[in-house]
Amino acid sequence: MSNWFETLGGLKSRVWETLARGVAEPEHPARLPNFATLSADGWPEVRSVVLRSVSHRDHSLTVHTDLHSAKMRSLRAHPRAALHVWDAEQALQLRLQAEVSIATGTDTRALWEKIPDHALQSYGVVPRPGARIETALDYVKQPDPATFAVLTCRIVTIDVVHLGPDHRRASFSRASNWAGQWLSP
Amino acid sequence: MSNWFETLGGLKSRVWETLARGVAEPEHPARLPNFATLSADGWPEVRSVVLRSVSHRDHSLTVHTDLHSAKMRSLRAHPRAALHVWDAEQALQLRLQAEVSIATGTDTRALWEKIPDHALQSYGVVPRPGARIETALDYVKQPDPATFAVLTCRIVTIDVVHLGPDHRRASFSRASNWAGQWLSP
Repeated sequence: MSNWFETLGGLKSRVWETLARGVAEPEHPARLPNFATLSADGWPEVRSVVLRSVSHRDHSLTVHTDLHSAKMRSLRAHPRAALHVWDAEQALQLRLQAEVSIATGTDTRALWEKIPDHALQSYGVVPRPGARIETALDYVKQPDPATFAVLTCRIVTIDVVHLGPDHRRASFSRASNWAGQWLSP
Repeated sequence: MSNWFETLGGLKSRVWETLARGVAEPEHPARLPNFATLSADGWPEVRSVVLRSVSHRDHSLTVHTDLHSAKMRSLRAHPRAALHVWDAEQALQLRLQAEVSIATGTDTRALWEKIPDHALQSYGVVPRPGARIETALDYVKQPDPATFAVLTCRIVTIDVVHLGPDHRRASFSRASNWAGQWLSP
């Protein structure tokens, strides 16, 4: 019987289990992946996002954001993202490349209706996120379904590293139908 | 007497104190910033790095890497990085934009001599990091000063967010001589 990190199949299953735990468990490190994009003026960017849903079947995941956030401008210019999770407990690093599509307006209204009131505070601020203001609190939270966007990230590649007594690294890609390939760590 | 997060000066000081703690304290979240780059083929990338030194005076920091890692190819094509730290205890997010310069060979030899033996294992693997291998452990760690690179990140902008009962966000930039500007969060 091998450990999960010793086979390509074991690693692949663990990737999806870990992402699913990120959605289900508020304290899990996969709850807050680091989400990297490329700005319209050519700078890499990275910030935390909240993982909202994961589909192993579709090899996709979703994230919610404010339509007026800087990452929306970046994604409109370059609809690609990299996601990164470091799970210290499992000594597991996940890195995903994803193509990102944006849903807004009527497409997201049903989802908006289900968001608890306190969480709505994350969508809609006046002036828009990143706008210059005179003093620290010169803004108003103004929850507004018109500013709510759902990012669907269609995963293209997965790079996974397990840091054990021996390090193991593998990649899985849509192009190879997720077959898996060992890589030098 | 105001709290540190209520003034631009207080936030700026806290940014540098936090980065300095990352260098000094192995368990501090600023020890392992998320480091985003742009690959030669146009994909955003992000991974953890270890923060090795910080200079408030120069507004710079350093990171060590393997010369044959993928991020080196990215940085040679696009010498820019974004660094991100989420410090849950302080409810503080730091995001830095930096121009990156690469030092190798004789320029880094004095530093190499000071690295403890166990840490040398991080520099030099055959085949190079990311190369395809037949089975998981088909690689050898081979510490080699010729594969050791020091990345000096010259900070261009700092974006800081404090998530308190009220959220506060500010930016500081080299272009404005680090004067500070409140932003809508």
